[in-house]
Amino acid sequence: MQELTKKVVEFTRERDWDQFHSPENLAKSISIEAGELLECFQWNNEYSIDEVKEELADVINYCLLMADKLEIDPKQIVLEKMEKTAKKYPVEKSKGKSTKYNKL
Amino acid sequence: MQELTKKVVEFTRERDWDQFHSPENLAKSISIEAGELLECFQWNNEYSIDEVKEELADVINYCLLMADKLEIDPKQIVLEKMEKTAKKYPVEKSKGKSTKYNKL
Amino acid sequence: MQELTKKVVEFTRERDWDQFHSPENLAKSISIEAGELLECFQWNNEYSIDEVKEELADVINYCLLMADKLEIDPKQIVLEKMEKTAKKYPVEKSKGKSTKYNKL
Amino acid sequence: MQELTKKVVEFTRERDWDQFHSPENLAKSISIEAGELLECFQWNNEYSIDEVKEELADVINYCLLMADKLEIDPKQIVLEKMEKTAKKYPVEKSKGKSTKYNKL
Repeated sequence: MQELTKKVVEFTRERDWDQFHSPENLAKSISIEAGELLECFQWNNEYSIDEVKEELADVINYCLLMADKLEIDPKQIVLEKMEKTAKKYPVEKSKGKSTKYNKL
Repeated sequence: MQELTKKVVEFTRERDWDQFHSPENLAKSISIEAGELLECFQWNNEYSIDEVKEELADVINYCLLMADKLEIDPKQIVLEKMEKTAKKYPVEKSKGKSTKYNKL
Repeated sequence: MQELTKKVVEFTRERDWDQFHSPENLAKSISIEAGELLECFQWNNEYSIDEVKEELADVINYCLLMADKLEIDPKQIVLEKMEKTAKKYPVEKSKGKSTKYNKL
Repeated sequence: MQELTKKVVEFTRERDWDQFHSPENLAKSISIEAGELLECFQWNNEYSIDEVKEELADVINYCLLMADKLEIDPKQIVLEKMEKTAKKYPVEKSKGKSTKYNKL
C-alpha cells in the first residue's frame, strides 16, 4: 500500500495537482467517484467489470491521496476501525444479520 | 494490501455477512460511507481528524471487500487507471491545471 | 409540484421506464446525480451555472419520481421534517452556528 | 414549490444559517443527505418508510435552498432538462430499455 501511495502521490506531483488536493476537495472527489461506481449498478446487475474496475480504482486512488495528505496510515485506520466495529457487532449478536448495531 | 484484505474478509466471514455483500450492495455502501466522510467537511474546514480517520477507514474497508468479491487486485487496477489517466492528462498539457481533460 | 410530478411521471410512462424505478433504484439514482452535481464544485468555485442547473434538475427529477412511487407528498414531508429540525435546532441555541445538534 | 421554498428559506434566515449555504456547501449537503437516503436501502428492501420520508425531505430541502441561492426556478430547470432528455431518449428508441443513450 505504501508503494502504491508513493506512485499516486508522484503522479500528482508531476502534474502540480497537489494544490487542488485539500482534504475537503479529496472528500468531494471520493464521493463523486463513489457515485460513478454506483452508476455501474444503477438499474440492474448486468455491470461491466471493466467499468467497475476503473471506477473502483478512482475511489481507491483518492483514498490513498487523502491518507497521504493527512499523514494517516490507511492500514492502521482500517484495523483500528475493525476493532471498534467488533465491539459494536460481537459475533454472537450479529451473526447472519444485517441489522444496525443500535437495533441489534 | 493483501494481508489487510484477508483480515477484513475474515471479519466478514466470522459474522456470516458475506451473504449481504453483493457487488451492488458494496457499491451502495462505498457511496454511503463516502457521504459520511464528506459530512466531516460539510460546513467548514474545522474537521475532526478522528472522525475523518473512521469514515475513511469505512470507505477503504468496503473497497477492499468489493475487490475481493470481484477477484480484482486493487493495486493492479489503480496502476492501470493511472496509465489511462496519464494519456488523458499528459504532464505538459495538464500541469498546474484542474481543467477536465475534455476541456484541456 | 403536483403538476411537475405529473409531467415527470408521464415522461417515464411513455418510455415504459417505470419497471426500472424501484424505490431502491431511485435512491441510487438520487445519489448518482448528487455526485454529478457535486462534480460542478470539485476543485474550485468557478462552476458553470448551466451544468449546475442540469444536475440539480436530475436530482429533483428523481426525488419527484421517488415521492410518486411511494405515494409521498413532497411538500408535506419537507414541512414535517422542518418541524422536527426546529426542535433539534431551536433559534436561540443554533443561531449563527453550524454545530450539529448533538454538540450544541 | 415557491411557497415551500419561501418556508425553507425563512427557516434558514431565522437561524442565520445563510452564511453557511454557499452553492458548494449545499452541493455537499445534497450528496450527504442522498447517502443517508441510500442507507435506507443498503442491505435489502425492507426499508422503513418513515426513515425514507425524512431523508428524502432533507434532499429536497437542500435542493430548494440551492435553487433559491442561485436564483433558479426548480420547475423550469426540470422541464428544460426533460426536453433535453427527450432528444437523447426518443420514445421509439428507448422504450422499455434502461440502456444509456450513448449505447442505444
